[in-house]
Amino acid sequence: MSGSKQLKLGAFMRPVSIHTGAWRYPGALPDANFNFPALKRFIQKLEQGKFDAFFMADHLAVLNMPINALKRSHTVTSFEPFTLLSALASVTEHIGLVATASTTYDQPYHIARRFASLDHISGGRAGWNIVTTANPDAALNFGLEEQIEHDERYVRAREFYEVVTGLWDSFADDAFVRDVESGIYFDPEKIHVLNHQGKHLSVRGPLNIARPVQGWPVIVQAGASEAGRQLAAATAEVVFASAGNLEMGKAFYADIKGRVRSPSGGRFAPSLGRDPDSIKILPGALVVVGETVAEARAKRVHLDSLVHYESGIASLNSALGYDVSHFDPDGYLPEIPPTNAGKTSRERVIAMAQRENLTIRQLAQRIGSYGGLAFVGTPQSIADEMEQWLIEEGSDGFNIMFPFLPEGLNDFVDKVIPELQRRGIFRQEYEGKTLRENLGLTRPANRFFQTATTSVR
Amino acid sequence: MSGSKQLKLGAFMRPVSIHTGAWRYPGALPDANFNFPALKRFIQKLEQGKFDAFFMADHLAVLNMPINALKRSHTVTSFEPFTLLSALASVTEHIGLVATASTTYDQPYHIARRFASLDHISGGRAGWNIVTTANPDAALNFGLEEQIEHDERYVRAREFYEVVTGLWDSFADDAFVRDVESGIYFDPEKIHVLNHQGKHLSVRGPLNIARPVQGWPVIVQAGASEAGRQLAAATAEVVFASAGNLEMGKAFYADIKGRVRSPSGGRFAPSLGRDPDSIKILPGALVVVGETVAEARAKRVHLDSLVHYESGIASLNSALGYDVSHFDPDGYLPEIPPTNAGKTSRERVIAMAQRENLTIRQLAQRIGSYGGLAFVGTPQSIADEMEQWLIEEGSDGFNIMFPFLPEGLNDFVDKVIPELQRRGIFRQEYEGKTLRENLGLTRPANRFFQTATTSVR
Repeated sequence: MSGSKQLKLGAFMRPVSIHTGAWRYPGALPDANFNFPALKRFIQKLEQGKFDAFFMADHLAVLNMPINALKRSHTVTSFEPFTLLSALASVTEHIGLVATASTTYDQPYHIARRFASLDHISGGRAGWNIVTTANPDAALNFGLEEQIEHDERYVRAREFYEVVTGLWDSFADDAFVRDVESGIYFDPEKIHVLNHQGKHLSVRGPLNIARPVQGWPVIVQAGASEAGRQLAAATAEVVFASAGNLEMGKAFYADIKGRVRSPSGGRFAPSLGRDPDSIKILPGALVVVGETVAEARAKRVHLDSLVHYESGIASLNSALGYDVSHFDPDGYLPEIPPTNAGKTSRERVIAMAQRENLTIRQLAQRIGSYGGLAFVGTPQSIADEMEQWLIEEGSDGFNIMFPFLPEGLNDFVDKVIPELQRRGIFRQEYEGKTLRENLGLTRPANRFFQTATTSVR
Repeated sequence: MSGSKQLKLGAFMRPVSIHTGAWRYPGALPDANFNFPALKRFIQKLEQGKFDAFFMADHLAVLNMPINALKRSHTVTSFEPFTLLSALASVTEHIGLVATASTTYDQPYHIARRFASLDHISGGRAGWNIVTTANPDAALNFGLEEQIEHDERYVRAREFYEVVTGLWDSFADDAFVRDVESGIYFDPEKIHVLNHQGKHLSVRGPLNIARPVQGWPVIVQAGASEAGRQLAAATAEVVFASAGNLEMGKAFYADIKGRVRSPSGGRFAPSLGRDPDSIKILPGALVVVGETVAEARAKRVHLDSLVHYESGIASLNSALGYDVSHFDPDGYLPEIPPTNAGKTSRERVIAMAQRENLTIRQLAQRIGSYGGLAFVGTPQSIADEMEQWLIEEGSDGFNIMFPFLPEGLNDFVDKVIPELQRRGIFRQEYEGKTLRENLGLTRPANRFFQTATTSVR
């Protein structure tokens, strides 16, 4: 068992489920969006299953669907990630807590503080999922008439990352001496004023918070566009990938690990090469467990049937950044002009329609339920697929999505996890105390201070 | 006991203490700034004492003191309020959670979401302490070269409040029908798009979160300038007052309750009159408990002696917004020119120096330790003073500050609270489930939707 490559597992959560039909599934909790005791049970079950991390997605606007589709969706509202993950920090001990935060609609001083604070509260379990926010409606909630252009959002994201990590390094790890006798609380030689002046940001610092337990919270990135891949190669320690099948997964894995080894030097990735093991690639995967493969497939068919066509077409329009609802639903997609929406999502949907020869209606039903990678089968068949991805370098693990809660989550923890453990590809116990230690990532040195326990970056 | 006027008690907390010498006091926890288990014990003890609320102050910069004073201060860093209070929400059941958030350096969409989320997580225990952020160094951390002028910050605060409360009203209280049969998750007639366009803010909405449990989290305000009083009279439900003695407290109390009854119609308070009982005035008060008055006084003398002169003079400069360290410390204050710092703090310090004939050195030592209202004595003498304030309309209760932790907090809960309860002026059990219910405040109606349980505002 020891020595074999190990899966890393995150749970990619929405309170009700990522599947838009899930709130209607028998046994589901339609009110989970604001049901904290339910979320507490979910994360404690994931911790029992030794999951690496609990990922919480975020949106900075009500999703831009027509109201007739929106009214059918449980995804319209839920807890804000920092408040939720902080509340969950005090009822868990081991599992990582990954919050999404936007580099487009927030300030680096706030973001640096909140993640540092969550890292201190949780004893080193925080992770930052860096997003640039593709939803154009978000701009309208933050005083802008239109969103910043796609690639420029990534230029800002790169600068934002430098500022946030620089703020985390404001104090040396050993700055706080707290010498009661002399009355010296911290060593004034061990505080650094950032004085950042850049294209998008001007931030003096220092941060008013001690260096995080992990040095820096774990950096997570999910962008799959060229700009997103460059940013991930330069900065990310976990990549939340979106790979529809093993072939796509292997291509993405090879691309990112290759960029990390020998970065392209593009405008978003001007930094040095890194160890490819310092970045973990975790594709999102919906997992539906049954006693038999047929039973698992029947569950998914039932689940998909709970999605209304109006919601499907709205999700398709949102994914394309283009309204196709006035075309014949039983015909094929028209030519979709380029838009300012997320490029990757649009390209993936168009490719899926072409690959599987789907009509607009079929595509809408797929996208409205869940169009990405799925493992649907028995604990054995699911473990077989996961092991294959791990061995063939399709991924370093997965971000698991549960089709309905709590049943789908309980099935995974009670049935799939033990099978992965039996095969020696998933931990029996947490390896360390911090998210970073459990993921096998090194603690970053402070760029401004060399200390006994860390080396200069 | 029933029928008599009741004290409302908040705890105004810094993790180590609000007193800058406290980290050196015997038995103190110098590392409490990032010691979550200690904070958990503190709040659970406060809840055992039936406190209304736990208040957490906030700063958006390292305090602007010279480094030689800063290095002696435990106030340089601590948890960020939202992450801390959210983490504390899941380990408490009754106590209110009041977070400070700035209307100058944040966005109303973020603020509305976080407070709504904290209110849902805590079952209706959130409160928003509205601040405009007086520290000019904060501007430098948020891309500005200098801070916005004092009164203009209050104009923005008033608009910000309207936007945040409007966003909280995005959904009717009964919007979420979650009808599994029909597939309708929420009633599309019960979502409101704010479309705010104002002088400082442009926010479309709707908020992507259900209406808070309390309708709106409790609104708290601490400004004491003319602009601050107008804003409090128009919006606040709790006023964190700063009154040096009973005479000042009565004058402030009469002023605010009078404004509430018949508002001045100033530029910050254009709204209608309100019930004076709908606003609770809670002055901050340091409480030092002893077996005898002499023992309590000796504790305070010991505590003050732990403050270094350099820290005292820095605090004095900060409070004045003006550097007086090059004047003779044994002489009196020079004429202080008006600055862009908080007006009230400056005026209060100047008045204290004149009233008590203090030299710069004496004033520095006072301000560097704690210069405000203090009750120093036995549980009986402290309860006597509190009762007098309540009866004579100096306040509706207090925001208690503990001189050192945990001892000062434990003394208050174990010795002073029972004495207040014996006199029938403080609760034996929480009256309700929400902070609003415990404070005796009504739940605000939704301005956009009339429902069976609330009336139109």
